[in-house]
Amino acid sequence: MTTHAPLLAGAWRAAPAAAPTLHSVNPATGAALPDTYPVSDWAALEAALLAARAAQAALLARPDAAEAVAAFLEAYAVQLEARVDELVELAHTETALPREPRLRTSEFPRTARQLRQAAAAARHGAWRHATIDAGLNIRSYYAPLDGPVFVIGPNNFPFAFNAVSGGDFAAAIATGHPVIAKAHPGHLSTTRVLAEAAFAALQTSSLPAAFVQLIYHLAPEDGLRLVSHPLLGATAFTGSRPVGLSLKAAADAAGKPIYLELSSVNPTFILPGALAERPAALVDDYLGSVLMGGGQFCTNPGLVLLVDNADSRAFVEAVAARFAAAKPSVLLSPAAPQHLTHAVGELAAHGAEVLLGGRPVPDTAACFANTLLRVSGDAFLADPIALQHEAFGPAALMVLARDGAQLAAIAETLEGSLTGGFYTHSGADDDALYAHLAPIARRKVGRLLNNKLPTGVAVSPAMMHGGPYPSSGHPGFTAVGLPAAMLRFAALQCFDNVRADRLPPELRNPNPTGRLWRFIDGEWTQGDVPSA
Amino acid sequence: MTTHAPLLAGAWRAAPAAAPTLHSVNPATGAALPDTYPVSDWAALEAALLAARAAQAALLARPDAAEAVAAFLEAYAVQLEARVDELVELAHTETALPREPRLRTSEFPRTARQLRQAAAAARHGAWRHATIDAGLNIRSYYAPLDGPVFVIGPNNFPFAFNAVSGGDFAAAIATGHPVIAKAHPGHLSTTRVLAEAAFAALQTSSLPAAFVQLIYHLAPEDGLRLVSHPLLGATAFTGSRPVGLSLKAAADAAGKPIYLELSSVNPTFILPGALAERPAALVDDYLGSVLMGGGQFCTNPGLVLLVDNADSRAFVEAVAARFAAAKPSVLLSPAAPQHLTHAVGELAAHGAEVLLGGRPVPDTAACFANTLLRVSGDAFLADPIALQHEAFGPAALMVLARDGAQLAAIAETLEGSLTGGFYTHSGADDDALYAHLAPIARRKVGRLLNNKLPTGVAVSPAMMHGGPYPSSGHPGFTAVGLPAAMLRFAALQCFDNVRADRLPPELRNPNPTGRLWRFIDGEWTQGDVPSA
Repeated sequence: MTTHAPLLAGAWRAAPAAAPTLHSVNPATGAALPDTYPVSDWAALEAALLAARAAQAALLARPDAAEAVAAFLEAYAVQLEARVDELVELAHTETALPREPRLRTSEFPRTARQLRQAAAAARHGAWRHATIDAGLNIRSYYAPLDGPVFVIGPNNFPFAFNAVSGGDFAAAIATGHPVIAKAHPGHLSTTRVLAEAAFAALQTSSLPAAFVQLIYHLAPEDGLRLVSHPLLGATAFTGSRPVGLSLKAAADAAGKPIYLELSSVNPTFILPGALAERPAALVDDYLGSVLMGGGQFCTNPGLVLLVDNADSRAFVEAVAARFAAAKPSVLLSPAAPQHLTHAVGELAAHGAEVLLGGRPVPDTAACFANTLLRVSGDAFLADPIALQHEAFGPAALMVLARDGAQLAAIAETLEGSLTGGFYTHSGADDDALYAHLAPIARRKVGRLLNNKLPTGVAVSPAMMHGGPYPSSGHPGFTAVGLPAAMLRFAALQCFDNVRADRLPPELRNPNPTGRLWRFIDGEWTQGDVPSA
Repeated sequence: MTTHAPLLAGAWRAAPAAAPTLHSVNPATGAALPDTYPVSDWAALEAALLAARAAQAALLARPDAAEAVAAFLEAYAVQLEARVDELVELAHTETALPREPRLRTSEFPRTARQLRQAAAAARHGAWRHATIDAGLNIRSYYAPLDGPVFVIGPNNFPFAFNAVSGGDFAAAIATGHPVIAKAHPGHLSTTRVLAEAAFAALQTSSLPAAFVQLIYHLAPEDGLRLVSHPLLGATAFTGSRPVGLSLKAAADAAGKPIYLELSSVNPTFILPGALAERPAALVDDYLGSVLMGGGQFCTNPGLVLLVDNADSRAFVEAVAARFAAAKPSVLLSPAAPQHLTHAVGELAAHGAEVLLGGRPVPDTAACFANTLLRVSGDAFLADPIALQHEAFGPAALMVLARDGAQLAAIAETLEGSLTGGFYTHSGADDDALYAHLAPIARRKVGRLLNNKLPTGVAVSPAMMHGGPYPSSGHPGFTAVGLPAAMLRFAALQCFDNVRADRLPPELRNPNPTGRLWRFIDGEWTQGDVPSA
C-alpha cells in the first residue's frame, strides 16, 4: 500500500503519518484498491489557501496573465493526452465506466477539448464584458474573484467534471484563479494522475507552481470552514443535495459565492401525437439516453410524463421490456445500489408501482436491476415532492396523467431541474398541448429540449447546465459552456475617471487585440474608443 | 388622522381596522406626521404574491411584453412629473433633504430619467445576452425569474432608490417582473404618492393592475417568510447590515436570489504627492462630497487614508475647520443621531480620537455635530474591523499611516466597499505608491476612482454600484447602470433543438428588430443567423 501525497503549495507534500487514509474501491469486484490517500487536516488547507493567494497575486501582477493561463491549459491538455492509456485504465477500474464507448473516445477527448476551449476563451476575453462609457470615462469589466476557487467534483465523470481537470476547473483557471481541488473518493487514483499531468504542465508554464493544488479528502467541518474562509474566492460543487446544501449554508453565511449543481429529475413530456406517430423511435430514443452510463447522468431523464392512453401504456410496456433485456451496468460504487434501494423505496412508499427491478443484483458489488416505476397522475399530484425524489442510476418513473390538463397541473408542481423536454408530433398534432405546457415547464428548467433527450451536454457558448433551485444554487449561471460558465467566477470591477495608463488593457481606448468585443456607449464593437 | 390603504392586487385595499399603524416623523421638528399607515399581515402578503404571479404569467404570455413594460415605465415617468411639487414637498418634510439643490433638480429628474432609461433598455434587449450556436441549434438568453421581485428601499433617497420608483424597481419591471414594494418608514407619504402615480400609469397601460403593489410595513417574521417564499422570484434590499443579513439568511436557505446593498465606508487614499501639490483643492473636493446630504450617501467617503506628515496633518486640520464651520444638517430621522452616537462611541472605544463633534446637536430632533475622528496607522491595524464600523452621517475617520508600507498593510485589512479612490499627483510623484496600493484596493471595492470622490453614482452602462461582501451580497452584480443592473433578475434559459416557431423572437434566425445585439457563434452581431 502506498499513501500518496496531496499536491500542496507547489509540491507533493506527504500528510502526517498519523493522518487517516481512504482508498477507492473497484465497483466491479467490491475490492479495495491498493493505493491509499490521506485526509488533509486544517493546517494543510490553510497552507493551500495562503499559497493560492500568493499565486493569484503573482499572476494578476503580470500584463500577460490571460496568455499565461491559456498556455498552461493547453500544455495541460497535451500532458493529459500523453497519459490517456493509464487514465482510461484507472478510471475504468475505479468507476466501472466502460473504456469504450465512454471513457476513451468520448469523455477523455471532451476533457482535453474543454481545456483548450477555456484557453481560447481566456485569450478571446469575451467573458470580461468590457463596458465603456466614453463620455463619462467610466469603464467596467469582469475580473477574477479575490482568492482561489475550491472545486469539488462529482463521482460520475472522472475526467470531464473532475475537480482537477473538468469544466469548473477550466473555467476557474481561465478567469485567473488558482484552484484547490478536492478529489472524489470514488476515483482517487484517476484524480491523482490528472493532477500529476497538471503539475507537469505547470512546470513547463509560467504560472506559479501553487496554481493547482489537490487534496484527497478533508473532514466535513473543515469543508465548511474552507468554503466560508475569508481567503477563498468561491466554491464550485457538483454532487449530492444534502452535502451541497450544507456547504451552501456555510458559504452563504460568510458571503462567499458558491455554485452548486445538485440533483435533477429532468422531466420529459412525451405528448400523445408523438407517441401515436412514431412509437418505436421514441422507445429507441429513450433507451439510448435513460440507461446511458448506468443512468448516472445529472441530466438523466428519470421522470417521464405521459397522457394515459393505449399508446402510452404500450410505451411503458416496451420500455419495461427493453429494461428487462438490458444487462444491468456496474454502477459507480458499492454505495450506489444502497442509495437506489432507498430512493426506490421512497417512491414506492408514496404511491409509485415498481414494474420492474427495484433491488440490487445479487452476487454483485455494485449492480442494481434496471428499474421502472409507474404512477398515475392523481397519485403523483397527491405527493408531488416525494415523487420527485431522485433515483440516481438505472431507474425511471413514468407518470400517466388523466389528460393534458392534469399534465399541466403536474408541470406546475415540478421542482427546478437542469433540463426538461418535450417529444411532439412532427406536424401540428401536439401544438395546442405544447403551447399550454411549455410555458409552465420553461419556468422550471434551465435547458428546454424538443424531440431530443438531455443526456448530451454540449460544450457550446449557448449551453445552460444549471437551472432553478434546487437543481442549482442560482438560476442565472451555467456550469458548462464558454464563456458563460466563466461568469460564475467574475467580480464586476468599475474604473471611474482612472488615468489611461492605469487602466487594464481591455479598458483603454485602443482595442488591445483588435478583436476583443466591447460594449462601448451602448453598442458592441471591436473598434477603438473614439477619441473625444 | 387618515390611515392609508396599501396597494394590493390591483386596488387600494384597506387593512383590517385592528391592524397596527405607523407614521413618518418630520426630522426637522421631531413631530409625528398626520398620515398613518397600516402594517400588512401575512394574508395580505400572500394575496400580493398570488396577484403578482398571475400578473407575470399574463405579461409573459404576450408577444409584446417588452414594449408593454417599456410603455408603462414611460407613462409612470410622466405621471411622476405631473406631481413633482407635491412629491418634493412631501419628501422634504419627511426626510429633511433640501428641496434645492437636492430633491427638485437632482434626485427627482434622475428618478424619472432612470424609468425612461429602463424603458429603453427593455426595448433594446441587450440585457438578454441572446446567444446562438447555429450549428448545434442551441440557443439561450436571459429571461425573467419565476415570480415577482420584492423591493425594500432605503431611507436616504426617497425618489431615486425608493422601492416603488427607484433603480431596483425600474430594473425589475424592465425585465418582466411585477414588483411588491415595501415603503421605508421614514417617508411613507412620499412613497404612497409615488405609488399613486405608478397606479395611474398602470390604468393607462396594458399591464395587469397588480404589476405594482405597495405595502407600508410588515412584521419582521413576515419579511423573512416573504423573501424565502416559493412564489417569490427575488428580493432587492438596500439598507442596514443587520436587517439585510437576516433577510439574506432566510432567502439563501430557501435558494431564493437576494441582492443586497449594505454598509460601506468607501476608503479614500490621498497620496502625498497630491497633498503637496494642491492641498486647498483637495480640501474643497473632500468637503463637497463628505457632508453632502448630511453624509448620508451609501458612497460617502467616510474613511480617509493618509501618510502622516506635515501636509496630511494640515489637511486634517483644514477639514476640521471646515467641519466646524459647516452648519449641521438635519438628518433623515430622529434615530440617526442615536445611531451616530453609538457608531462614534464604537470608533472611539477602539482607539480613534474624536477631533470634533461626536454628539447630537442640543435642542434639535435630528441633528448631529459634524464629526471628525483621527487614528494612527498603528492603532488602526490593531483593530481594523472595529475601525471600519460605518458611521452613517456627517462623520469621517482620518487614518494617518506611518508610511506607504503601512498604508498597504491597512489596505489589506479593508472589508468590501462599494467604492474606493485615490487622489494622486498630476505628474508621476505618486505613481510608485499608487502601483503598490491600487492592486490591493482594487480587490476590495466595486468602483475604483482616481482624483474624484464617489458620491455621484452615474446611471451609466459601465457603472458598478455594488462590491465585495459585506458591501453587497455578491461581487458580480450592480444595482445601478443599465442593462447591467437588470442581470440580477435574470434566469439563463436555454432552448436545445427547439422548433423555430416555438422560440422566443430574440432567438429565431431573423434579428427581430434589426438592431438587437446577439452573440452568434462566438461573435456579437446585429445580423440574422445565417441560413444553414
